[in-house]
Amino acid sequence: MYDGGYIGKILRVNLSAQKATEEVLPQEMAKEFIGGAGFGIKILFDELAAGVDPLGYENKLIFSVGPCTGTTVPCASRMAVTAKSPLTGAVGMAMTGGHFPVELKRAGYDALIVEGKADKPVYLWIRNGKILFRDATNLWGTRTTDCQQVIKSELQDQNIRIACIGPAGENLSRLACIVNEMRAAGRKGLGAVMGSKNLKAIAVKGTETVPVSSREKLKAARGEMAKAMKKSPVLYPEFSRTGTPSNVDNTCALGIFPAKNWTATGEFTPVEQLGVEALRTRNVGRLFCSGCPVGCSQLNLARSGPYWGYLAEGPEFETLYSFGGQTGVDELDGIITADRLADELGLDTISAGVTIGFGMELFERGILTTKDTDGLDLRFGNHEAVVKLLNLMAFREGIGDILADGVKIAAGRIGKGAERYALHVKGLELPGYDVRGAKAHGLNYATAFTGADHNRGYAFQEIFGIPIPYAVDRFVAEGKGKLTKWNQDVRMATADCPTMCVFLLDMAVAHFALENTASLMEALTGLTFSPEEIQTVGERINNLARAFNAREGFGRKEDTLPERLMQEALKGGASKGNRISKDELSRMLDEYYEARGWDVTTGIPTRRKLEELGLAYVADELNA
Amino acid sequence: MYDGGYIGKILRVNLSAQKATEEVLPQEMAKEFIGGAGFGIKILFDELAAGVDPLGYENKLIFSVGPCTGTTVPCASRMAVTAKSPLTGAVGMAMTGGHFPVELKRAGYDALIVEGKADKPVYLWIRNGKILFRDATNLWGTRTTDCQQVIKSELQDQNIRIACIGPAGENLSRLACIVNEMRAAGRKGLGAVMGSKNLKAIAVKGTETVPVSSREKLKAARGEMAKAMKKSPVLYPEFSRTGTPSNVDNTCALGIFPAKNWTATGEFTPVEQLGVEALRTRNVGRLFCSGCPVGCSQLNLARSGPYWGYLAEGPEFETLYSFGGQTGVDELDGIITADRLADELGLDTISAGVTIGFGMELFERGILTTKDTDGLDLRFGNHEAVVKLLNLMAFREGIGDILADGVKIAAGRIGKGAERYALHVKGLELPGYDVRGAKAHGLNYATAFTGADHNRGYAFQEIFGIPIPYAVDRFVAEGKGKLTKWNQDVRMATADCPTMCVFLLDMAVAHFALENTASLMEALTGLTFSPEEIQTVGERINNLARAFNAREGFGRKEDTLPERLMQEALKGGASKGNRISKDELSRMLDEYYEARGWDVTTGIPTRRKLEELGLAYVADELNA
Repeated sequence: MYDGGYIGKILRVNLSAQKATEEVLPQEMAKEFIGGAGFGIKILFDELAAGVDPLGYENKLIFSVGPCTGTTVPCASRMAVTAKSPLTGAVGMAMTGGHFPVELKRAGYDALIVEGKADKPVYLWIRNGKILFRDATNLWGTRTTDCQQVIKSELQDQNIRIACIGPAGENLSRLACIVNEMRAAGRKGLGAVMGSKNLKAIAVKGTETVPVSSREKLKAARGEMAKAMKKSPVLYPEFSRTGTPSNVDNTCALGIFPAKNWTATGEFTPVEQLGVEALRTRNVGRLFCSGCPVGCSQLNLARSGPYWGYLAEGPEFETLYSFGGQTGVDELDGIITADRLADELGLDTISAGVTIGFGMELFERGILTTKDTDGLDLRFGNHEAVVKLLNLMAFREGIGDILADGVKIAAGRIGKGAERYALHVKGLELPGYDVRGAKAHGLNYATAFTGADHNRGYAFQEIFGIPIPYAVDRFVAEGKGKLTKWNQDVRMATADCPTMCVFLLDMAVAHFALENTASLMEALTGLTFSPEEIQTVGERINNLARAFNAREGFGRKEDTLPERLMQEALKGGASKGNRISKDELSRMLDEYYEARGWDVTTGIPTRRKLEELGLAYVADELNA
Repeated sequence: MYDGGYIGKILRVNLSAQKATEEVLPQEMAKEFIGGAGFGIKILFDELAAGVDPLGYENKLIFSVGPCTGTTVPCASRMAVTAKSPLTGAVGMAMTGGHFPVELKRAGYDALIVEGKADKPVYLWIRNGKILFRDATNLWGTRTTDCQQVIKSELQDQNIRIACIGPAGENLSRLACIVNEMRAAGRKGLGAVMGSKNLKAIAVKGTETVPVSSREKLKAARGEMAKAMKKSPVLYPEFSRTGTPSNVDNTCALGIFPAKNWTATGEFTPVEQLGVEALRTRNVGRLFCSGCPVGCSQLNLARSGPYWGYLAEGPEFETLYSFGGQTGVDELDGIITADRLADELGLDTISAGVTIGFGMELFERGILTTKDTDGLDLRFGNHEAVVKLLNLMAFREGIGDILADGVKIAAGRIGKGAERYALHVKGLELPGYDVRGAKAHGLNYATAFTGADHNRGYAFQEIFGIPIPYAVDRFVAEGKGKLTKWNQDVRMATADCPTMCVFLLDMAVAHFALENTASLMEALTGLTFSPEEIQTVGERINNLARAFNAREGFGRKEDTLPERLMQEALKGGASKGNRISKDELSRMLDEYYEARGWDVTTGIPTRRKLEELGLAYVADELNA
């Protein structure tokens, strides 16, 4: 009989030994880290030694869900995937939705830790408590939808849910993602970590019921959420019918839709070609993550020229940026095709597109020539070249091999001053908000523990004018340090840990996110939190992740932005004339570190802060 | 309580009225036509008026299963799809396997009759006895695997089974097929019939138990089958591990693997590139039709050049012929890719490949030039052109539009004597056995009621030397009339009606096929047959189909072969020097009509024969 408290299990799989063991999830871990990303980062810090090779057998790949996953809480089919990133060398963590997370939870697990390295390709077959290591030699080389289909046929159950890598992950591209259905744990090269372990896929079938501490309290908490969702001015019907592409319209209006490797932001604004109305002409339906009433994921079908008949889940806004704005492409059907192809090959659409746009600027500048590209015309706007390059990158052929590991490594390979045009923070390519017109975004890119990652502390205040926790001016640096801390901590604690979709946070529940999470936690697990304690969980995790990075040598000097954004002001559009100067960034960093209680000189968490958060052992390790 | 006799239901769906009705399957229909193809042809003859437009609303599309489908009988997940063919104007019937047939049977139906035409694209959703017409406007344009995936997501059940058309069927290509999973009811343009009705897909979920008259008798019958399967010298392990591609090796050895639009048979023999050993290097596993212990369907992955990462269910032997031999292509990965693409676009691989090979000969002869092909180099062997042409055909662009309806119609469009190079019988493109070295195949191509269709009366005696019902010499015409009648009747009665996989017939149960079918029928339905009565069912159906064609104006003069096969002898290989002369064909036809009891002058069933088969009403209709 369930008597309250968080009941959980961790599945630990060692691929070298082909051994699987179950561990009880410690109660204090649930209390201190909630779930999802919190579990991933806690396990990563505790179990990894400093300096391990991200593509070596010592790295671990952690799939973790949260207390809301697999329950009747809406929009909670989310999962964190965590490892040391081969792209950044820092914490690599990405969230994904779909159906796999719920299946994993219903198989009985809150976290799956994958260790070691298989001798030859394998896939995991998890059926409730039964774990099998199955030969995947023959699956090596398959695209992601084929791989999932073949496994479903092999296991004779179409309802199995599968996360897998494509050719890019097998070939250790540091831009490789992990795909479940057509959704991806996209960024930071987690697919290469999976590939380095010779793990092609994880198949899961779960039929257990997720325990709930108080159905009555859960009903009440869900009622509050439903009210807030209904009240949201954007969630229904707009967002559920358009999804993220509306942000092309928004960011173009704000003059911050980045274009042509960030040289033409505010000037190249393809709203008519890539905005909401254009997408509507390609829409064929939408997909719902498990238990989601919104269904923001749009299915779009290419309907012209050589792209006729290609279907994508997406492109999401970020993909319209990366394969569109960044590459100067305004051919929607080419972007739909590139999006699908990247999913099939298992390439992160953001980093892949940004890297192609980087290659295009080098080509326009003559740093790369047709001699380097085997004749491929890499000028901005060549959508056919984008599609071709994706294949070359996934299979590491010619110029594709040079670009397959992102802009930072490619710049090193190319030389000739190419690093000046490589837009990244800590090795992670920039997402689709030109921070010169959205400074909290800039500070978040500079400080997020995963590198330039919009998802770690998305400043919806600047994009949508939402005054939570307070109103801000997007051009002003002051106040952004405190804001970024709030965004990073609250988003972590109320979305990435429980797990809950960030869109729900941004569009409906931000005003009572901490209270809501506290109510849900009590209803689901019996563990009680004050709203402040929820926020503290977010802070704890951000400190722990920061400590992981510090242990790897990261500090204030890595909290920076590409030179271009600090030196070149925007030349057109509604943010024209703006940049983030070095001085401005420095001031924002000072404010941020102070708000965080970190050492302002080094950007590293102080012992006092760590102890305050119950992380004394972390302080010990950093000192050692 | 089940008290013997065949319990069955027909689902009649009228798309114009969006109405679905259930009818009881008449007992005598089960006794006289068994099921599957028998039901399809019976319904087609009885319900279609002469002369209806195959792409008009009066045509009907019939999906029919048999008494074995969905039971524990092995290799019985088969289904006939029947309509008046838009490619031939004759009976259009094709068999397919996979999982859809069992699902349809378990939904309670022996046959689904689709009538009329929807105003706008729809798909059918059949869940046991519940039928819904769902809007498919948005699905229009999707490829076949995407279409199936989107419907599964929309209906929130991954275990639904779906038959659908791709862009080729929507665009009324007369080479369009109907695809379930990656299997196809491939030939005779049935996909265009579905497209003409604005029917994108049929989704089925069935959970009912199929009634069995005597479980004890069924067990005994299955035991006999299992013994025969075990005894087969080819079924295990060879055929189950290699599938049909071994026929590339066989037919090349016999000198009858057709090459370069049948100009180079015996000379172009790419065993090393396309034979069993080559396929082994691409194999990634196999798929099993529902309840099949053999699993001959091979999954192959392209592993070179621009084709890296394409996965196909196949290529089967026929596809290796059509996209390989016929087009002079010996690049296996290109063929794998073309195979997958044809499945995705919903194009019959045989007819599509033969039509491309036809275009290639015209190009080599200068009848088509780069002006006609928009610059596409259509010389034999250009595998990239094959892949490109498939897209153009499905979307009816340029040269693709000219070729999209098969060789006969294309020759008419092109003129300039092109019809001389159009290899077909009754409009259906030739399958992969060069009949100049296998004369029973020739007679079957000439007389089969669906046109040049190897599946209607496959002469395994000539290919594998099996002496059932008697031994034959493949180069000799004499005796092939009687043999073809036997092949056509027995195959119909023991495979296409019950329904049972033809490979099981060919490789394991041929020696007692009639007895076996009689035993199964009694066990499953309680209806008793002598082996002779089973054979008579096959004869009855072949007569009825022939009567359908006669009503449409077909007779002896359409029972012919392309001029090339009668005039040009094979120039190389083990069948060198052979052809089927006009005189030889005429003698074979005489023998065949006599064996059938048909009028030798007209090739039309006599009243006497029809009455003997209980088809007096058919004779009345033919006379009227």
